[in-house]
Parts: sequence; C-alpha cells; structure tokens
Amino acid sequence: MAETPEWARDPQSQVLREERDGVLLLTLNRPAKLNAWNPVMEQRLFDLMAEADDDSAVRVIVVTGAGRGFCAGADMEALASVDTETFRHGARPLSFPTALRKPVIAAINGPVAGVGLVVALFADLRFAADDAKFTTAFSQRGLIAEYGIAWQLPQLVGTSRALDLLLSSRVVRGAEAERMGMVDRALPSDQVLDAALEYARVLAATCSPASMASIKGQVYRALESSLDAATAEADALMPPVFDTPDFAEGVASYQEKRPPEFRGLPPRG
Amino acid sequence: MAETPEWARDPQSQVLREERDGVLLLTLNRPAKLNAWNPVMEQRLFDLMAEADDDSAVRVIVVTGAGRGFCAGADMEALASVDTETFRHGARPLSFPTALRKPVIAAINGPVAGVGLVVALFADLRFAADDAKFTTAFSQRGLIAEYGIAWQLPQLVGTSRALDLLLSSRVVRGAEAERMGMVDRALPSDQVLDAALEYARVLAATCSPASMASIKGQVYRALESSLDAATAEADALMPPVFDTPDFAEGVASYQEKRPPEFRGLPPRG
Amino acid sequence: MAETPEWARDPQSQVLREERDGVLLLTLNRPAKLNAWNPVMEQRLFDLMAEADDDSAVRVIVVTGAGRGFCAGADMEALASVDTETFRHGARPLSFPTALRKPVIAAINGPVAGVGLVVALFADLRFAADDAKFTTAFSQRGLIAEYGIAWQLPQLVGTSRALDLLLSSRVVRGAEAERMGMVDRALPSDQVLDAALEYARVLAATCSPASMASIKGQVYRALESSLDAATAEADALMPPVFDTPDFAEGVASYQEKRPPEFRGLPPRG
Repeated sequence: MAETPEWARDPQSQVLREERDGVLLLTLNRPAKLNAWNPVMEQRLFDLMAEADDDSAVRVIVVTGAGRGFCAGADMEALASVDTETFRHGARPLSFPTALRKPVIAAINGPVAGVGLVVALFADLRFAADDAKFTTAFSQRGLIAEYGIAWQLPQLVGTSRALDLLLSSRVVRGAEAERMGMVDRALPSDQVLDAALEYARVLAATCSPASMASIKGQVYRALESSLDAATAEADALMPPVFDTPDFAEGVASYQEKRPPEFRGLPPRG
Repeated sequence: MAETPEWARDPQSQVLREERDGVLLLTLNRPAKLNAWNPVMEQRLFDLMAEADDDSAVRVIVVTGAGRGFCAGADMEALASVDTETFRHGARPLSFPTALRKPVIAAINGPVAGVGLVVALFADLRFAADDAKFTTAFSQRGLIAEYGIAWQLPQLVGTSRALDLLLSSRVVRGAEAERMGMVDRALPSDQVLDAALEYARVLAATCSPASMASIKGQVYRALESSLDAATAEADALMPPVFDTPDFAEGVASYQEKRPPEFRGLPPRG
Repeated sequence: MAETPEWARDPQSQVLREERDGVLLLTLNRPAKLNAWNPVMEQRLFDLMAEADDDSAVRVIVVTGAGRGFCAGADMEALASVDTETFRHGARPLSFPTALRKPVIAAINGPVAGVGLVVALFADLRFAADDAKFTTAFSQRGLIAEYGIAWQLPQLVGTSRALDLLLSSRVVRGAEAERMGMVDRALPSDQVLDAALEYARVLAATCSPASMASIKGQVYRALESSLDAATAEADALMPPVFDTPDFAEGVASYQEKRPPEFRGLPPRG
C-alpha cells in the first residue's frame, strides 16, 4: 500500500486557527512550501470557515499565510497524484468564502500565485504587502483561467486589466495591485496582518453581524441580478429589520453617542 | 387629530428650484437638519425632476444641499412615524433619476450618509467637496443595504471596495471617494457647486439633448444586457438618427467650426 | 457610372501588415485623413485579423495608426455616401476582435474619436500616448452611443465615468484615460508602439497560445454569465488540459527554470 504523501498528512497542522475579540485568524501553514495549495488544506480551510460561520462568537474571518508567503499556488506533487478526471476533490467551489454570512479578509503577507490568487480574490477584501508578488501564472503553465477567476477578477479590476493579468501572467507587486483595484490596501509587509486584524476588530466591535450578513449576500446576489430585482429584495428586507434588536441598538447607540453592542449571529436554521 | 409633524410641512420649501441657461438646480433645503431625507422631500424632489424631464427648456439637472451638508440620511423622526409595513411611501424607486432622459449631476457640498448616499449614487455623475464625509452607515445601525445600493455601488467602485464601504460603514472623505471611483471630481468645498454647474452648462450648450437622452438610456440598459443586445440596439437606433435636425446641426457646426445649436427635447409621448 | 470615391479605392493600402516574432502589426493607413474609418478599411482590417487568427505563426495582434493619429472617427465622405437604411456594411460587428482567439492590443499613437474609439475599446488592451486626445464625440454630433460602446465602456471605467465621457464628449488625454481605466498604459508618444510591441513579444514568447485563447474566451463569456456558470466552465476545461503538450511544457520549463517553448495555435476546426 502506498505511503501517504507528505501533503496529505496531518490536516490540522495545515491550517491554524486563533480566535480573539470576535475575529478568527486562519493561517495557511506549510511555510516550507510557501503554503502550496492541496486538497487537504482546501478542505481544512473551508471546514474551519463553515464552522466559524455557525459560531456566534466569530464575527469576522481573516486568512493569512505562515512564513514569508501567502500561497504559491498548487502543490505540484499533489497535482501530479490527482486523478485528473475528478481533479476537483473539494465538495465546495473555491468561491465558498463568498457564500458565508461573515466577512472574510485576506492578509496577503507575501507571494501569491495561481490557485493561491484565486483563494485571495474570493475573500471579500484584501490587505497586501506592497512588495508581495502577484501572478495569475496560468498562461505560463499551459493552463486555463481556473475556478471562476475569469468571472471574479474583471469584477474587481475591469475587463482589460483582468485580461492583462490573465493573458500575460506578469508579476505585479502589491502597490500596483492596489492601484489596479486587485487589493484594497497595500502596506509595508510587517504591517499587513496587524492592519487586517485591526480592520476586522473594528467590524466585530462596531458593525451589526446581522447587517453584515445581509449586506454581503445582497452585494454578491446583485452582481448577478437586475437593479429592479436588487431593489425589490432590499424593499422586502427592510420592514422586518425595524423590529430587530440590532436596529434598536443601532439607533440608540447613535443617539446616545456610545459604541453599539450588537448580538452575535445565531447558527443557521 | 395629530398635528402635522415638522418634516411633513411645506413641501415646496423642502426642495428649491432655480433654472438658468438650460440647467435646473434643485437644492435639498432643510439645512438645520443637514437636509435629512423624508417622504415629503423625496416626493417633492422627484416631482420636480419628472417635471423637468418634460420641460424642453431644461437640458441638465443639478442636485445639491443647502447649508453645510448634502443629506445626512433618513430623518429619524420621519422614520419613527412611518408605518414600517409600507415604509416605501414613494411611488418611485430611489433610482428614479436614472430613468430620466436628462443628465443628473450631484454636487455633494458636505456630509452624505445612508439614504442620502443612495440618492447621490443614483445621479449620473458626482462632484464632491474633497473634505466631505461619506458613509453608508447601514451596518452601524443594524440595517441592510438599502434601496438598490447593493447593485449600484459595485458598478461604480468594484465589488471589494463596495463591500469595504458597506460592511464597515467607515467614513471616507471626498478625495478618497474620488480615488475609489465613488465620485467623479473632488474639489475644494467652495468650488463644488460652481464646477458642477459649469459642467452642466457645457452639456446644455454643446451636447444634443436627443443624443444625451439616447446615450443615458443605452448605458443603463447595457448594464443589464448582453453585448449582442446592446449592439443590436445601437444598430437599430442609428439609421433614424441620420434624418434628425440634431445630426445635421452636429455635422454642420463641426465642419463650420462653430458652436452647435441643438434643439430642446420635446415632452415625452 | 459614378467614379469610385477615394476612400473606397485600394483596400490593401488602407491597412498595412507586418509580421515578426509571432506578432502581427496592423497599421491603419490613411494618415492624410487621420486614418478616418470607412467600410473598406473595416473589412480589410477584420479580414486580416480573421486570417491571423487561423495562422499558427501569429500569436498576438497589435493595431496602430500611421502618421500622427490613431483614428479620427468615421470618414465624413464615406458616411455621406452610405445608404443609411443599411448603414452597417460590415458582416462583422465592431466587437469582432473580442471574438478572436488571439490577444489584440491597440497602440494608440495619437488622436482617437468616435468609431475610432470604439475600435480601440474592442481591443483587449490599450497602450496610449499620454498626450493623445480621446473623445467619444457622439453627443456633439447629434448621434447615439454607437456599436456597443454603451456596453463596453462601463466595463472598463465604471458607470459614471462612462456617462461622463459619453454625455459630454469632452476630450481627455491619454494620461487621464489611464487613470480612468480606459487605457492600460499611458506613455510618451514616441514609446507607445515599441512598448505595445514589446508586451506582445513577451506574450508570444512566454505564454501558451492555447492558454491565451481559452482565457480570452472565458473572460468575455464570464462578463455575461453567472459565477456558477463560469466556474462550471473552468472545471470542465481543466481535465483535458492536463494531457496537452503545453501543460507538460509549462510545468517542465518552470521546474527547469528555462523559457517555455509552446506550440502555435492550429487553425480552427
């Protein structure tokens, strides 16, 4: 019987979790391989995210990489051993984070490539080291635009910038990625994680989890709907909101000029 | 019988109108309340816009706020008295300005929040004070993404910037709003209205009202259609244009190197 | 019998072709008329593009203008002689370049207006002189948003910037066009063509033609599809890729730290 390959061992060590102040930090943890992606890491990361989405103590999720990189792309050994007929091991699409009710923020501490970039782009926001190298990589490996990046990247940077990055696989640094709209904040590398965590803590402390869940879903649905449909959805969501404790607290805290104390989001139905 | 509340009195004073050189200036006018939005103001504003759309003397509409702000969001007293089951008093959606045939330009002179921001975003263009404070506000009040902003904001700034602004309700100034694409021009606050009016006067003096009506409709429809459908629409609109007086004048004025004299848009139907 | 008008003579001289290092340079060549567009030039340009798409020696196409401009818009004489009932002579839509399998890069050496701008926008990427004048021109001629520009321009620059440019026909220079996202690189005018050709040569030398064909199609299709559909397409395209010579070469050249040698794209069907 074949020995279990290195990349398939010890799922728990491949993604670390740390929770504080309502913020769950998930760290891709194969630093010797620049956190190269494999099916075990994927399942572990998404399992932790699914768990967090149903844990009322968690309000915001931050994803980063251990060591000097974020994620160098697919693990070549894992890829080589995959049955290519059924290469999608995961039960969930890579866009899974967009289906969560809680904000997901990527803290891109260093190089990000290929599927690693897809993972970063399916976070809701991106903080990045201004010198981190970004590359789609696909066109230089004889590959295609993988996993929905052909849909997601133009939403962030427009059609021609997406074609530039995808056709050429050229390397851009975090600072240029910010100018293009691919990341939301570019910072010196030693400040990236702290800035992402601080942003997450502010969301956790001052924004209604129920509001954030509704807003996140509305925005992603609106990308695929008409203005009329998005307006009708908003008009239908409004009346029940007036009876919620978070609305009462939101108005009261505003009028009393004090920080709000919103409720954690209960587990899904 | 209950006394009419302050916000429901005197519709005509709530929005002022002033017309000059083909430009209609509409001013939200409750400066003591930072022009807080209420159903009476909404109906008055949209009635004036509908009237202007059928008035051939008006070619462009500019909306601004009286005093030091643009619109601070919903009037809390009006909100409290609203029957939440039927909270949408207005017969028209807040995107009504996008359905007009004439360009609508928001001159954001000062703070804009919540529904006030939705109103500003449904103008075709935005000029803003570089120090004006912008906030979506919803997530800090326990609310949702109201009235179609979940659809409109990503169209202007991309998905992740929209999520940043909507999830966090963080305050951005006009200068940052310009960098994000949420406003078209950020200017010192004492120049905002003049710049918007000057831009509007140039449209009124040099651009065909029939062209602007067609183009505005084409752009908003194209956001919800395929390239093929948008191309087919353009190809169908073209032949009749060659027989219009505005096309003849457009070509003649160009060849004679003189300013064009286009016709006002006749009332609908 | 009427004499053939100047613009309808000598199709071959209206667009020049020059091929080198896998890059086909197509030059609009009516410099005395700032390369004004006419049906003969259109058919010649698109015929050459169609031919190149089936020529495995060509990997990337660059389009530029002879003399000091890119394309000044429609040739007024050609327009005057057109049967306006059937004004679309061409069998192909102006978006034809987006349907090719190979990247098309516009090198905008000087002024671009009206239909010339539409042509430039339907390239995949744009390099432009920082002092080149850009104008949509339609609203100042009594025209409409022609040929799909109402769909394409908002994809590149967002809704309100597109409305700004289309409603006003104001002139923007290449440098502003870059800030708006209408061009990808603004450069001193004497460097534009060289930079576009160099970018094209890098694509031709280092990126798999099969990958670029797939990616280009995926991106344009994704603009009109849902995330789920785009993901399903990517997941279906992946397994066969693992058996292609370009994938083998992409991985091998990466592991051996040497430039890849990808195959030319065979003719269609």
